[in-house]
Amino acid sequence: MPEELTRRLARFIVASGFENLPEPVRHEARRTLLNWVGCAIGGSQHETMTKAIAALAPFFGPGQATLLGRGERTDILHAALLNGISSHVLDFDDTHIETAIHLAAPVAPAILALAEHRPANGRELINALVVGIETELRIGMAVTPAHYKAGWHITGTVGVFGSAAAAGRLLGLNEQQMCWALGLAAAQPVGLQEMFGSMTKSFHPGRAAQNGMTAALLAGAGYTASERALEAKRGWLNVLSSACNHAAFADAGWEILNNSYKPFACGLVVHPVIDGCLRLRNRNGLAAEMIDRIEVAVHPRVLDVTAIADPKTGLEGKFSVNHAAAVAIVEGAAGERQFSDEIVRAPAIVALRRRVFATIDPSLGKAQARVTILLKTGERLAVFVEHAIGSVENPMSDAMLEDKFRGLSEAILSSGTTRRIIDLCWGADRLADAGEIARSAGRS
Amino acid sequence: MPEELTRRLARFIVASGFENLPEPVRHEARRTLLNWVGCAIGGSQHETMTKAIAALAPFFGPGQATLLGRGERTDILHAALLNGISSHVLDFDDTHIETAIHLAAPVAPAILALAEHRPANGRELINALVVGIETELRIGMAVTPAHYKAGWHITGTVGVFGSAAAAGRLLGLNEQQMCWALGLAAAQPVGLQEMFGSMTKSFHPGRAAQNGMTAALLAGAGYTASERALEAKRGWLNVLSSACNHAAFADAGWEILNNSYKPFACGLVVHPVIDGCLRLRNRNGLAAEMIDRIEVAVHPRVLDVTAIADPKTGLEGKFSVNHAAAVAIVEGAAGERQFSDEIVRAPAIVALRRRVFATIDPSLGKAQARVTILLKTGERLAVFVEHAIGSVENPMSDAMLEDKFRGLSEAILSSGTTRRIIDLCWGADRLADAGEIARSAGRS
Repeated sequence: MPEELTRRLARFIVASGFENLPEPVRHEARRTLLNWVGCAIGGSQHETMTKAIAALAPFFGPGQATLLGRGERTDILHAALLNGISSHVLDFDDTHIETAIHLAAPVAPAILALAEHRPANGRELINALVVGIETELRIGMAVTPAHYKAGWHITGTVGVFGSAAAAGRLLGLNEQQMCWALGLAAAQPVGLQEMFGSMTKSFHPGRAAQNGMTAALLAGAGYTASERALEAKRGWLNVLSSACNHAAFADAGWEILNNSYKPFACGLVVHPVIDGCLRLRNRNGLAAEMIDRIEVAVHPRVLDVTAIADPKTGLEGKFSVNHAAAVAIVEGAAGERQFSDEIVRAPAIVALRRRVFATIDPSLGKAQARVTILLKTGERLAVFVEHAIGSVENPMSDAMLEDKFRGLSEAILSSGTTRRIIDLCWGADRLADAGEIARSAGRS
Repeated sequence: MPEELTRRLARFIVASGFENLPEPVRHEARRTLLNWVGCAIGGSQHETMTKAIAALAPFFGPGQATLLGRGERTDILHAALLNGISSHVLDFDDTHIETAIHLAAPVAPAILALAEHRPANGRELINALVVGIETELRIGMAVTPAHYKAGWHITGTVGVFGSAAAAGRLLGLNEQQMCWALGLAAAQPVGLQEMFGSMTKSFHPGRAAQNGMTAALLAGAGYTASERALEAKRGWLNVLSSACNHAAFADAGWEILNNSYKPFACGLVVHPVIDGCLRLRNRNGLAAEMIDRIEVAVHPRVLDVTAIADPKTGLEGKFSVNHAAAVAIVEGAAGERQFSDEIVRAPAIVALRRRVFATIDPSLGKAQARVTILLKTGERLAVFVEHAIGSVENPMSDAMLEDKFRGLSEAILSSGTTRRIIDLCWGADRLADAGEIARSAGRS
């Protein structure tokens, strides 16, 4: 194991600055921030959040930070945890496809809370977000795929490092303290894949955010840790992964540019079908009553996961390719609202859903689908989706990200407030007080 | 992997009660409690604690619980963390030799804090302590030695389960909630051996206590987790250990009876030498001026670790077999005070230290030593230590544990308060309000 991997990473983090970020990296950070804030607001009323808050409220410290989309204010450590939970609970946040890391969820809640408590400007915030994400990715890419295959939920296990790096950078840690912060982070990995399907899945990035922030705060006060936490024989890389690719630690490129955002509030697997239906609908001004049947050809995995033909609840709707196609046509959207109990039970949706027929085509890739719509007129409309919208190859536009944000936020905050938060995120690096972003997203 | 390992463990925890504990188990729990409280008070002024408190105080919640040996009060989550750190920072707390788990440090701080915040009597407290420790041991023995060999600091990694079990039992969780608590614990292991030698070592049990308590609180509010967190393919046992002995989960015996307590404030490796010197001193009324030379024959490992012949600081004194022998003769003790800078530099100690000669004898076991003292009169005194005091085979008596407690506590709290805490620990199961123990150990 090469010497000084931890120290080199600490040096990279401490030396980072907004002025050194190329504009495309800055803009990807703004997009990541906007998408994350929307997801955190959107998840803020979820049962997972109300249960976590009920359990922990008696122990909250001073009201230093906002719970996004909510009225409560808490100490920054609990805010990091709870905003982290809320941003991941809908499974609608960003994903780095190669590593499967949800990049923002462990990092953004730590630094947004910190920025409410200690002066930080928007340039510092954006730089901290980028350096936190790049830290996650260097470690995450070094241990991909062995670490994930072993059963760890990588978002939580490498997320702690991302949070420690980002919070530590915002706190102005020096190189020595940053080594300790990474060491304290290494000692607190969070997350097993066995928790998928339970509330503990969204606990992972929240706790990672809180652990990383704790690591940075302790290190800043001189609390020591090993300075070889990553590379040592009994350090994180050896203990948590059976293989490690050191090249990932080279100071190269900006991996944040490969971040991706989900346009639709369900598993990625069914996104190509939704995309295809939306394309045909929008090109041809389709309405449900014009349609005789919808035929979709999909990668085999799609029917492993989303074969519930006649879902009864919003959650079941997320696992129904029939429902996904139907809402795309009827609603022209597939956000959280389209996977609510109400919409899943709406007669127009149920009727169209029964005219959706899915078949497997092993020649298709996971990000591909073929959608054919037969109209009552006998006309036949078809589209082949090569890269679904939201993939790295076919990214959501800024306008789409705004639409997604509005869909999440306007159910909870006013449209005026929603607009204001969107503007704050796009203009984040011009803010004198980066705490404004989170503060604007509270509910009075 | 057998079905329902997690559920069976949850059932065992929920069904546990003081009335089912044999008296020797109850008494071992009192001894464990007394020893732990003494260590927590003794470590309370350590630099590690002052740094942790400086970093985290701005985020403390309401003053629900005592920091033992200190004036501050904090929310119970921070109290669990900080009392856990302070109880392990001197490396003077209990050890289960076979697994290397420090049993009390992740469990006791959680339940003592909880007992200050919610009504709990002493019988419930003792039962929670026992069931938390037995939970650590079932999991710990199942993964010994593979898990430790991989580099995990087992005290933190299984300690989370112990804390979740103990706190959950005190909170009255039902079987379903206890499964979730164990799941939330499984998702938050703490501790890498790479941190040994830094402040993060004592952070491990503290954070484990805090994580386990968080798990129990969340589960009690209905926050869900996998119910197969231990045995599932991507559960804790498979992900964190390359081997697992299921037999350890059988409901058999009380492993707490094999807990051991350190009589001396330094590594176990040098305890046989100290024990031998004390025996000769006490049998023969020895004083330093009577002695010409001290010869000690030791297991080879002793000189790997404690060969600093002329230490300059208290910390170096802990790694000097010469110093250890000298303080045993001069001071008749080897507590924290005997490993202070002051005592290490005291002329009488320095003088005797230079007349200590250590040699290796590969025929000796790790818990053995041969001590020979040549008097100026020409007389020759010798002792063979087969099982050093403090081992499972030769345990510290209750009176010795009291002496150790006084040595730790009276440097910080009055002798009246010290006496009162000792009495509260011995009589713990008769307390109507178990919160009295921690409250009595605060400094006004």
